[in-house]
Amino acid sequence: MVSAIDQKSINNIRTLAADVVRNADSGHPGAPMGLAPIAHTLFTEFLHANPKNPYFINRDRFLLSNGHACYDLSIDDLKQFRQLGSKTPGHPERIDTEGIEVTTGPLGQGVSNAVGMAAAEAHFAATFNKPGYEIFNNYIYTILGDGCLQEGVASEACSLAGHLQLGKLIAIYDDNHITIDGDTDVSFTEDVIKRFESYGWHTQVINNGDTDIEDFKKAIIEAKKVTNKPSLIKVRTTIGYGSLNQGQEKVHGAPLTEDDIKQVKKKFGFDPDVKFHVENDVYELYHKRAEEGAKYEAEWNKLFEKYKKEYPKEASEILRRFNQELPEGWEKALPRYTPSDSPVATRKLSEGVLTAISDIVPELLGGSADLTGSNLTRWKNAVDFQPPATGLGDYSGRYFRFGVREHAMFAFMNGLSAYGGIIPFGGTFLNFLTYGWGAARLAALSHCRAIYIMTHDSIGLGEDGPTHQPVETLALSRATPNMLTLRPADGNEVSGAYLVAIQNKTRPSVIALSRQGVPHLEGSSIEAVLKGGYVLSSDPKPQVVFVSTGSEVGIVVEASKKLAEKNIPSRVVSMPCTELFDEQSPEYKKEVFPLGIPIISVEALGTFGWDRFSHAHIGLTTFGTCGKVGDLYKHFGLTADHAVEKAEKVIQHFKNLGYVPEINAQL
Amino acid sequence: MVSAIDQKSINNIRTLAADVVRNADSGHPGAPMGLAPIAHTLFTEFLHANPKNPYFINRDRFLLSNGHACYDLSIDDLKQFRQLGSKTPGHPERIDTEGIEVTTGPLGQGVSNAVGMAAAEAHFAATFNKPGYEIFNNYIYTILGDGCLQEGVASEACSLAGHLQLGKLIAIYDDNHITIDGDTDVSFTEDVIKRFESYGWHTQVINNGDTDIEDFKKAIIEAKKVTNKPSLIKVRTTIGYGSLNQGQEKVHGAPLTEDDIKQVKKKFGFDPDVKFHVENDVYELYHKRAEEGAKYEAEWNKLFEKYKKEYPKEASEILRRFNQELPEGWEKALPRYTPSDSPVATRKLSEGVLTAISDIVPELLGGSADLTGSNLTRWKNAVDFQPPATGLGDYSGRYFRFGVREHAMFAFMNGLSAYGGIIPFGGTFLNFLTYGWGAARLAALSHCRAIYIMTHDSIGLGEDGPTHQPVETLALSRATPNMLTLRPADGNEVSGAYLVAIQNKTRPSVIALSRQGVPHLEGSSIEAVLKGGYVLSSDPKPQVVFVSTGSEVGIVVEASKKLAEKNIPSRVVSMPCTELFDEQSPEYKKEVFPLGIPIISVEALGTFGWDRFSHAHIGLTTFGTCGKVGDLYKHFGLTADHAVEKAEKVIQHFKNLGYVPEINAQL
Repeated sequence: MVSAIDQKSINNIRTLAADVVRNADSGHPGAPMGLAPIAHTLFTEFLHANPKNPYFINRDRFLLSNGHACYDLSIDDLKQFRQLGSKTPGHPERIDTEGIEVTTGPLGQGVSNAVGMAAAEAHFAATFNKPGYEIFNNYIYTILGDGCLQEGVASEACSLAGHLQLGKLIAIYDDNHITIDGDTDVSFTEDVIKRFESYGWHTQVINNGDTDIEDFKKAIIEAKKVTNKPSLIKVRTTIGYGSLNQGQEKVHGAPLTEDDIKQVKKKFGFDPDVKFHVENDVYELYHKRAEEGAKYEAEWNKLFEKYKKEYPKEASEILRRFNQELPEGWEKALPRYTPSDSPVATRKLSEGVLTAISDIVPELLGGSADLTGSNLTRWKNAVDFQPPATGLGDYSGRYFRFGVREHAMFAFMNGLSAYGGIIPFGGTFLNFLTYGWGAARLAALSHCRAIYIMTHDSIGLGEDGPTHQPVETLALSRATPNMLTLRPADGNEVSGAYLVAIQNKTRPSVIALSRQGVPHLEGSSIEAVLKGGYVLSSDPKPQVVFVSTGSEVGIVVEASKKLAEKNIPSRVVSMPCTELFDEQSPEYKKEVFPLGIPIISVEALGTFGWDRFSHAHIGLTTFGTCGKVGDLYKHFGLTADHAVEKAEKVIQHFKNLGYVPEINAQL
Repeated sequence: MVSAIDQKSINNIRTLAADVVRNADSGHPGAPMGLAPIAHTLFTEFLHANPKNPYFINRDRFLLSNGHACYDLSIDDLKQFRQLGSKTPGHPERIDTEGIEVTTGPLGQGVSNAVGMAAAEAHFAATFNKPGYEIFNNYIYTILGDGCLQEGVASEACSLAGHLQLGKLIAIYDDNHITIDGDTDVSFTEDVIKRFESYGWHTQVINNGDTDIEDFKKAIIEAKKVTNKPSLIKVRTTIGYGSLNQGQEKVHGAPLTEDDIKQVKKKFGFDPDVKFHVENDVYELYHKRAEEGAKYEAEWNKLFEKYKKEYPKEASEILRRFNQELPEGWEKALPRYTPSDSPVATRKLSEGVLTAISDIVPELLGGSADLTGSNLTRWKNAVDFQPPATGLGDYSGRYFRFGVREHAMFAFMNGLSAYGGIIPFGGTFLNFLTYGWGAARLAALSHCRAIYIMTHDSIGLGEDGPTHQPVETLALSRATPNMLTLRPADGNEVSGAYLVAIQNKTRPSVIALSRQGVPHLEGSSIEAVLKGGYVLSSDPKPQVVFVSTGSEVGIVVEASKKLAEKNIPSRVVSMPCTELFDEQSPEYKKEVFPLGIPIISVEALGTFGWDRFSHAHIGLTTFGTCGKVGDLYKHFGLTADHAVEKAEKVIQHFKNLGYVPEINAQL
């Protein structure tokens, strides 16, 4: 059963979707036409949100894992669909449009973000709710399609969601039997309901999603009752419902013909010749719903005012976190070191930072993809985020056991970040950053502050061999806009890397950390990291400059000393973050790299990309290989002696050439 | 029930594993100790293989998805475990050691390769078996652990395997309840059997994998009977069985103590003080099994000789394919174009190549991750690889419907390639190359010839926006050793890209293709692509060189003409493959890029990495954005007019500087 006004609204969404895509001559009419009943019902009956304030803390979140939906857009915005500079790009983007919770489009991401969001809700509720004060009790709704369900990232995330018993997560599966290659019969014939049951989800099936909404309403109400399981509601829909080609692939990704759109409008009782038309009573219904949303928020605000009086500390903590303000003076807790401190692996120093700041920065939540003991991501006395029923932790815990699920981990982190009030981190080996790149890329694009704690960051990991040794990985993260790549050399730089990562509210950071021990260097400091690269040590009038990162900086310091013994003055530039160095003034850059002095880069990964900063490179042009770290460094020329030899050669080459080329002019 | 000699063999494997890891002071003793009964039973009772000839075509394949196993290694090889230059690196590597079917280590890959291998077996059997001649009837065995099962790539691949009804695939799940973070209870509590049933697999459960092998034997026999479903056999084992710490995480990734090893040996009735000991009757048993393997191959050879007489064409075709010989003169079928041919998208030209060569190169098998109509990967008259029962195709079909499963597609391709006799290709948008990077990287490391047909290869894809527009992707593939990145500019270069990709038997190729149309260029040729980069057109005494790829080459040709009108002579270098250009002689490189002339790179992706070839860049330093292709190219300065402007600026800059820096000296 559908009431007259609901039916009209649903059909109006369908005609509007057809008009928008036709007008842009590009886009996907099939899904919005097929999903109109679900979207309409969710938005008018269940979703608590105030279009006037997309930042309302306790709003229900809605994530369209398979497409596009926006708040508070005008008809004119819709006319600009898919055009340069519009609020309505081809896939929903978090930064361009207020009210978009996460950037989706790449399949499998939205539902995985939703899992992270549901964990965020559980965490805030467990941490801040008090008797009589359900400050946090929102739901996470997500719509996903066949494509999302086929993607590995979604499998990983949904398995984790089941394990974590995230009851506030309600996923609606748009079962339309169609993917781009045609009927799902050609590639996707698994039993989805059974799969989700195997994950520990609550499942329901709705057979008619086209012309009925009552069963769907009941299913949502039922799903909300199940508090210790995420819910999947499978709804059979017809893609492009109303079109002459409904139920076929043709309606998925191309505009309907003008004639077909007219036919749709006529069928649904609208004037076939009017475009972008919205019926007055449909407008009214949605305006009324928007008012209800505003009222819902107002009531919450009232509750929060009372809470503030009774729990002033907690209330101000909530506001601080959701305003992305850091605790005052938190950075004073970052450990500092001197060269007399014992050499230690930078991953171990990272553990020291986490332990030092975990109490002071309580919004730091994270974990590891089943490499806790190797990544050293778990600070002392951390409590696991686990379903209380398991006895292994509780939802106020801040440490996640992600399992061997790198891609889901990164997507989950995007969900934590997008929920608000959380600074997420996740650990794995640097080489496995690419297992989750689909999500890491979206963190950069969506301005999520996410911290990737990537240990075993070079051939220095040794015996695990080239399957685990990153070579191309830092080139990837450095080539990515709005992402910071930090490879600290010692204790002070590790602290500096965290300072950078935590202070940068709108970009993700990769922190690359060594497995092997490194010395604390004379001349390093936390603050120097903020400039990306700096002169760690320099003889007067250097004839050669080494630029290096991470575990190799100590090696070039040694090389520099050996050169001094040969009366060849040199300079060591530590470059923990090339991207931050790029942002410095031309004057500062020239100070670090004076014109006319040859520069040699030294890094125990691939040399690709270092031409931007150096005339010659020490590093890998092949994959690594298996062996003890010392043997490998010798094998690949990553030693002080080889650096000395190379420096002499390079100095001679440019003497012969007669000049030292200017580089990095960035014309 | 276990016979005395079986028990002794099993225990001997356990003590040997403990010794090997202890000797290397690095490695994973837990899995081989726990899996000894399974490995022993598989190798001595089921696996048909001849250690003396790891290339025997119809051998059963064994893939250790969660670790390490080798053929024909001496005890001395084992003593070199995890050392530089050894045959026994930290994770099994296909190139270093004969008999390793695929390189594993990164979790989830081996089982996904196995799915591709099972598809390869089905394809060869359907194509070449004749009544009375089961030339192909081998099984694919794989052992996988909890980690593999958590990885998304394995979920994707196993769902696909169920859909494809690959009955020759037998996967053994080492259910030991332990991952690196401890008990699987902390993160992995799903019902694995139910999940695999949802995929359409046949499943069995063995409760005692430590001290019994009879049930396991029966399960394998049962699994072999089920011919239209892949099989999962879940075996409960105790990690590190025999150790004082058996069943705990401690035995996973670190050597047992000397005392513990002595205790293990004593418990199993071996001399506690003798290392690397193998009992004589255990040697005998394995030698006997090796002889059986040799005999098995000899019988197959006899059958094949008869087959050769009756089906000479098919027999020589099998041998040609497995010897990696290409059909003679195949490259003559590659289409050639002249500038008078109509402009067309390079993805469309790629479809033309596939259609032209599909009959001539029948070992070309591939598909798309649910973007067939966009990637244009399906040649005319292609038959789908589908279970015959579905009526949608059959196993002799060469076109795969991978579904929205990029990572599984790439891992599956590695399996096809490693099986032998197949040149696999797979299509998706270039941006989603990174969704499957874990497998693509292993293709490069393992010397798999795989062809990635990556369309929509720049911001030129337009309206889908930055979530789908690659920026950092080509930097990644170019930074990766032993991988070729091809971005052809027009029809001839597309044909040349396929020539390169198919001729290179030991490296994978990324072929990046445009969504939008491009003109056929004066001066392009198929053969020129083999050099990686070449002078497409040049005025005498050029003052500036443009180096460009793909859809932007046509733009710089236009810019060059505009400069000529201004009396500024210039040159256009088309650079479809930087990696191949790197391999040319210094003389050739200087011919293409004469010293003393400024170079400007033009590519509609990120500029990262171009400093190796050029003084200045036109390209992106941010993410792309949504809009029509023409608007975007204007917005990001990818126009002939902007290239002219930039050229004038760059020429002036170096006039002022007084010299043009030498680049790419590769000191």
